[in-house]
This record gives sequence, C-alpha cells and structure tokens, in this order.
Amino acid sequence: MSDKWLPNLQTEDAQAGYELAIKLSRMGVKYTQPSDEERTRMRPEYASNADSLIASSQVIAINFQTVAAANNYWIAK
Amino acid sequence: MSDKWLPNLQTEDAQAGYELAIKLSRMGVKYTQPSDEERTRMRPEYASNADSLIASSQVIAINFQTVAAANNYWIAK
Amino acid sequence: MSDKWLPNLQTEDAQAGYELAIKLSRMGVKYTQPSDEERTRMRPEYASNADSLIASSQVIAINFQTVAAANNYWIAK
Amino acid sequence: MSDKWLPNLQTEDAQAGYELAIKLSRMGVKYTQPSDEERTRMRPEYASNADSLIASSQVIAINFQTVAAANNYWIAK
Amino acid sequence: MSDKWLPNLQTEDAQAGYELAIKLSRMGVKYTQPSDEERTRMRPEYASNADSLIASSQVIAINFQTVAAANNYWIAK
Amino acid sequence: MSDKWLPNLQTEDAQAGYELAIKLSRMGVKYTQPSDEERTRMRPEYASNADSLIASSQVIAINFQTVAAANNYWIAK
Repeated sequence: MSDKWLPNLQTEDAQAGYELAIKLSRMGVKYTQPSDEERTRMRPEYASNADSLIASSQVIAINFQTVAAANNYWIAK
Repeated sequence: MSDKWLPNLQTEDAQAGYELAIKLSRMGVKYTQPSDEERTRMRPEYASNADSLIASSQVIAINFQTVAAANNYWIAK
Repeated sequence: MSDKWLPNLQTEDAQAGYELAIKLSRMGVKYTQPSDEERTRMRPEYASNADSLIASSQVIAINFQTVAAANNYWIAK
Repeated sequence: MSDKWLPNLQTEDAQAGYELAIKLSRMGVKYTQPSDEERTRMRPEYASNADSLIASSQVIAINFQTVAAANNYWIAK
Repeated sequence: MSDKWLPNLQTEDAQAGYELAIKLSRMGVKYTQPSDEERTRMRPEYASNADSLIASSQVIAINFQTVAAANNYWIAK
Repeated sequence: MSDKWLPNLQTEDAQAGYELAIKLSRMGVKYTQPSDEERTRMRPEYASNADSLIASSQVIAINFQTVAAANNYWIAK
C-alpha cells in the first residue's frame, strides 16, 4: 500500500478523532485482507453478528485511545 | 454520519464520564452497522448472552480509560 | 439509570480500588442488560465457565488500570 | 470478601510484580466465582486448553502493566 | 531468531508507524509459529474470516499505541 | 516457581525488549500450567491455529507496551 492515507494523528475535535480511529481500525483489516471484493463479501456476515460488532467497537476504542492521547484529549480547544 | 454527537470528552463527574464511555462504545457499533433496525434485531441476542455482556463491558472499560484520562480522573473536582 | 453510583474514582487503598474496578465492570453489564432478573438468570452460566471467568477478570483488570491511575497507584499513602 | 489481600501495589522487583499481577488476575476470577470447589473443578478444563491459557496470560499482562507503572518500572532499584 | 529486524521504534511519520505496528503484530505470530510454510497455509483461513481480521486489527491497534507513544505521536514533526 | 527469571525490565534495544515481552507472555502460560509436558502437548494445537496465533501476538503486544515504557521506548539510545 504505497498511497498516503495517514499523514498525522491530529484532528479538529474529538468526533473527528473518533472517526480517524474508525479509519485506523479498518486499515488494520485492509492490510491483512487487501482484496476489496473479499472484504465486501464479509461485510454482511459481521455487520449482522452482535459479537463481531462488539469486537469492532473494541478495536475502535483502542485506536481512539491513541488518537485522543495524540491530541491531548482536545483539552486546549 | 454528519451530525455532531461528540463535541468533547469533558464531563461533570466520573459517572457522567462512564456514561460517555457507554455512548462511545455504542457509536462504535453504530458506525459499523448503521441500520437501527438491524441493531434492534440483535439486541435480545447479546443482551441475554453472558459472554456478549462481558465483552460489552470490556469495550466500555477501554473507552472509560480514555474519558477518565481526558478529565484528569476528575481529581481536581 | 438516574441514581448516583459513581461519585469519583478515589479509594482508600489498592484493594478498595480493585473492588471499585469490579463494580465498574458489573455496571458495564448492567447498563447493557438492565433487568436484574435476566442477569441473575445468566449468573450460573458464566460463573461455572472458565473462559467467561477469565474474560470477567480481564474487564476488571482494565478498569483497575483506570482506578489505579486515578489514585496515583496509592503511592503517597 | 472482607479480608485484606492487597495492601498496596509496591513490590521488591519486577518478578515479584509479575507474581502480584498473577494474584490480581486470580482474584478477579475469585470475586466472580467465590466457591473454591467450583474453581478447583474448572482448573483442569482451562489448564489443558491452549486458548484459555493464552487468555489467562493476557489478563496477567494487563495487570502487570498496572503493577509495573505503580513501581515506576523498578527503574530506580 | 538471530537476525535484526527491530533496531528501534522511531518512524518518519504516523503511517510508517502504523506499518511498523503491523510488522510487530506479524512478528508475534512468527515467533510462535516460525514455519513460513505453516503460516502461509493458514493465511487464506484467517484472511477470509471476519472475526480473525477484526482480531488482527486489534493486535495492530495495540502495537500502534506503543509505536505512537515512542514517537510522541509525531507531534513535533 | 522460586527461580529468578525476571530481574528487571531493562533491555539493550527494542528487539531485545520485544523478546522479553515474548518471555513474559510465555511465563503467564507457565504459571497457569506448570507442566512442561502439558504445554508441549498443546503446542501443535495452537501453533497451527490462526486465531490462537493472533491471540498470542496480542498478549505479546500488551507485554511489549510495558517493556517499551520501562525503557522509555529506547529513545535515548
């Protein structure tokens, strides 16, 4: 993956930071399974499974910790 | 999702912080499965499954770490 | 849940902090499944399952990280 | 559980800290399943299951993070 | 494994840091299963399983926390 | 386990730190299942299972966070 998708971790506010955490979480999947077709095929499977959704939310939560720390929790803003 | 649901991570006290952590955890699910209907359909499934509930509590715990750090653990209050 | 159950994260010592972490972990379950009856019904299920118990201990461990940091690891005491 | 089992998080060195992390992990199980008999019954089950052992090691790792931070990583010693 | 694969944790920017986190995650697998043949055999299995992909992304997220902290979140750059 | 296996968390560089994280992860398993024979018996089971390998890498990642922090991310070196 040679294109630039993550220049830095700074975001305007907490919500943009949360959305960056989602992007990071999806990129983790994409690096492991680069085929768009395969990922699209799997989507209905995990999107309709409660445990998969909870696990997805957990990955986002971990990435959000990183993004939030990188932005000093948006305290000064 | 274009509406504003997370302006910042500051909360009045620890309990409000815990409740924000719950909201963050649910939004992680919602971004992955945006259909209200689908999420409502799955609710009884995981709400009556002990392991799903433990996993849910874990996601909340991770988000609570972030919110607590963002509020300096509500120490000064 | 409108009642006050978490005024702050300060505890007398490490053990009280660990017990607060347990409380936080249980509240994560309670917010997701508010029915006392349902939670009571599930208790024997996970309390006799090793993997569920390990997972429970993990949630407590994550919450204990938060409580311990909030108390500066009870170092000054 | 009214007895005192965790006065503080300070340990002599890193290994004692790791062993305290193990104790914390076990106490998380014990608070959820207080019956010694039940826990003894389950032991062979998870002690001979690779995934349960990996999960146990993970809980220990999380608690070790807390203990290590509480001891400033035993750097000054 | 005697060759040098990880001299330090410093990277040019956040994306290079994310890619280092992926490398760390893969090395964790490699140390446990050193056989290239075995790992290649398993690849289609987890690369087409949504839950395995989510779990992979979680490991990357945890390693990314470490790399990001090591680079002070690339803030000064 | 009375022998000394972990005097401190300091390592020469990041790779040695990663290898210490692997050791910590294995010790977590060993404390829970002290029988060398049992652990050897289980090895092929998890070493050929993708999800077990991902879980192993996760435990290593968590321990690596601790070791990296203990070494100030090897920045001064």
